[in-house]
Amino acid sequence: MNSAPIGVAILGCGVVGSGLVRLLTESGSEVARRVGLPLAIRGIAVAHPERPRPEWVDPSLICGDAAALVARDDVLIVAECIGGTGQARQYVEAALRAGKHVATANKELMAKHGHDLCQIADDNGVALRYEGSVAGGIPLIGPVRTSLAADRIERILGILNGTTNYILTRMTRDGMGFEEALELAQELGFAEMDPTDDVDGFDAAYKLNIVASIGFGRSLRLGEMHREGIRAVTAVDIAVAERLGYVIKLLAIAKRDEEERLELRVHPTLVPKDHPLASVSDEFNAVFINLRHAKEVMFYGPGAGLGPTGSAVAGDIVDIARDVVSGARARIRCTCQPHPEVRPIEEIRTRYYLRLLTRDRTGVLGGIALILGEYDVGIATVSQELLAEDDPASHGYTGPCSQIVIVTHPARERNLRRALREIDRLPAVHAIASTFRVEE
Amino acid sequence: MNSAPIGVAILGCGVVGSGLVRLLTESGSEVARRVGLPLAIRGIAVAHPERPRPEWVDPSLICGDAAALVARDDVLIVAECIGGTGQARQYVEAALRAGKHVATANKELMAKHGHDLCQIADDNGVALRYEGSVAGGIPLIGPVRTSLAADRIERILGILNGTTNYILTRMTRDGMGFEEALELAQELGFAEMDPTDDVDGFDAAYKLNIVASIGFGRSLRLGEMHREGIRAVTAVDIAVAERLGYVIKLLAIAKRDEEERLELRVHPTLVPKDHPLASVSDEFNAVFINLRHAKEVMFYGPGAGLGPTGSAVAGDIVDIARDVVSGARARIRCTCQPHPEVRPIEEIRTRYYLRLLTRDRTGVLGGIALILGEYDVGIATVSQELLAEDDPASHGYTGPCSQIVIVTHPARERNLRRALREIDRLPAVHAIASTFRVEE
Repeated sequence: MNSAPIGVAILGCGVVGSGLVRLLTESGSEVARRVGLPLAIRGIAVAHPERPRPEWVDPSLICGDAAALVARDDVLIVAECIGGTGQARQYVEAALRAGKHVATANKELMAKHGHDLCQIADDNGVALRYEGSVAGGIPLIGPVRTSLAADRIERILGILNGTTNYILTRMTRDGMGFEEALELAQELGFAEMDPTDDVDGFDAAYKLNIVASIGFGRSLRLGEMHREGIRAVTAVDIAVAERLGYVIKLLAIAKRDEEERLELRVHPTLVPKDHPLASVSDEFNAVFINLRHAKEVMFYGPGAGLGPTGSAVAGDIVDIARDVVSGARARIRCTCQPHPEVRPIEEIRTRYYLRLLTRDRTGVLGGIALILGEYDVGIATVSQELLAEDDPASHGYTGPCSQIVIVTHPARERNLRRALREIDRLPAVHAIASTFRVEE
Repeated sequence: MNSAPIGVAILGCGVVGSGLVRLLTESGSEVARRVGLPLAIRGIAVAHPERPRPEWVDPSLICGDAAALVARDDVLIVAECIGGTGQARQYVEAALRAGKHVATANKELMAKHGHDLCQIADDNGVALRYEGSVAGGIPLIGPVRTSLAADRIERILGILNGTTNYILTRMTRDGMGFEEALELAQELGFAEMDPTDDVDGFDAAYKLNIVASIGFGRSLRLGEMHREGIRAVTAVDIAVAERLGYVIKLLAIAKRDEEERLELRVHPTLVPKDHPLASVSDEFNAVFINLRHAKEVMFYGPGAGLGPTGSAVAGDIVDIARDVVSGARARIRCTCQPHPEVRPIEEIRTRYYLRLLTRDRTGVLGGIALILGEYDVGIATVSQELLAEDDPASHGYTGPCSQIVIVTHPARERNLRRALREIDRLPAVHAIASTFRVEE
């Protein structure tokens, strides 16, 4: 083992890239001590070299040719901080095939092409690490791969998107509507101008795909995941859920049963107030894992940002460097088995929260209960209230309007959907205002 | 690399040992897949081979001669599950010197002799892992060593002892006194018949010593840590703290300042209700870490028990096995620097909660405030109430008794102690009933 520094190439100098540069510069001596060799940034490839950079970025390191930087003989580790699945994918593939180790925080890339990329890494005997791709600075992939590797993960519940958690927190604490909370999040920089990726659950789905794949040791198809965003969550539902002892969170849920069948879904979910996830607020993320032996563990922290994500990528680089120094070859290989049977959403069994608006007429509740019963959907709790004419929840239906809120016992989703179709046809029923799943 | 299984020797078959055996037996095929080679338990050494064992323990593996088992050529990894610092230390040393990797959950051993043992491991080019020694099944040492390795840890706050957290939770939720809650914990098996190790903070101190040593990269001396247990916490203080917006937890606290000076202390602490640690209840543990870049992360889970601790030791074994399979040599070496300057408790600056019992006389509060001011201890909030004759808090002092509760601004502990000595001499002051530190 010679004592030359370990060369690192950084692709991209946006939020993640510049955060990584700052961290590696600041912690250089400490990292060298922990690794046993110093790291040296060989270059930072960007699309627009002429643009201004943060003061901590050494201008002499900025270059325009990413391919040439990756190919340099004195580059051993490549940190991909470009994002997306275009150039990022090209450069990561090229780096792996050239025998370079890669660290990335690119969730979309790993969720869509992670399995193929891991194969390429294994074929070339190099490491591909992506701790920062899920829950930013929260150590998650590492622990699942290592400390929990001998245990059996049975369920993963994640608050994996900071933007939607911030919006739901504002709606819960300040009684804001969705649009108002979204605008605030955009003003504060917690949400993009085009918020689709976050509020419609794509971002959370990418992350769940990655962590569930590692946790269950199976390669997973994004397309098989059920995904709902938070646009349908109203201030009324949040207030009603609060009275019932729940908070509404955008949960990413992965479960496996004894037959190795999986459930993979991202949707707004009622969570009991005393659950550890219920108190995860604002832009924070958390992942709650049920295991056969370790019982339950939770990881909590900031889900994104220059510091946290840069910290995660740097942690991956340090771990790769340790492999290099210790002479480890392909220490963590992709051991994913072929993709498992994933339950269609209609097949799942869970509890449901239903809010219906009906005419104020005797027998309405009875008729609804009857239909639910016919479809084997048991009622756990029910409440009915007469809404004031001007109550926003009444959606301006003419005449006195009743709001019926039902929480069911665990039921098959297909049955619930059929029941709701029939209930919707009842003349006295104005609308099925909301349907959300409940997770204990 | 040949394909013979990796031999594991297990020393001890108590709670941790038998839990480990069950897990390795149940997860055998999964572990083999993740590692690339199967693990094989070569033997389980116990002091009393004739004693009955759980049904999942293969009797043919039980043996009486630990030294002989460790020395076997087909044993590559030794799992120490004996506990204590006597035989456990001998066997761990012998194993390391014989070139065997070691996994242990022995917090006392690692806290008292960890630095020496890590040196021996490094000298012999083998791994010594101890994830299970802190916070049972919660992945903590691994993440601190890896994912957070490139960041700078500034503060560690831990609820590291499940017994005391259970006792404080009962006192908080059910208004029990300490003795009553302790008895309940003993009945339920959460506390030993001799509870000293837990309630006096020794157990938490061991764990803080281990995690702070890794987090700060310094070898630490147990003797330099300030340690107070929870015997002095009363139901009255918990109720008063509740009114002020705090919960009382036994916190293990480690901080470092810019000059690399450390604070290391274990004591009952007032924590704001909205802090993530405040909602960690019953026998659960949690560790909250402040970092320069990742900002803050928290790890939560069960702190002990057959399943969780066995899971942690098994995770270490899997990680060691990965090193073996990948040909890594001494992948994680002890990189601790010499022990740093540790601040004596008198030197720390923090906020304090004070509860005093005084005669009901005008000017008493003024006199107290005056003395605090002389010693540069600022008052943040103060309340005074006249206690009923029969109020338990009045400790049966004759005549009307006032209770004064003060929360200070950050102050030097030496100054506070001097001020309290003077205040204690005031004729109108019956007693300084309680003094606890506050951590934001």
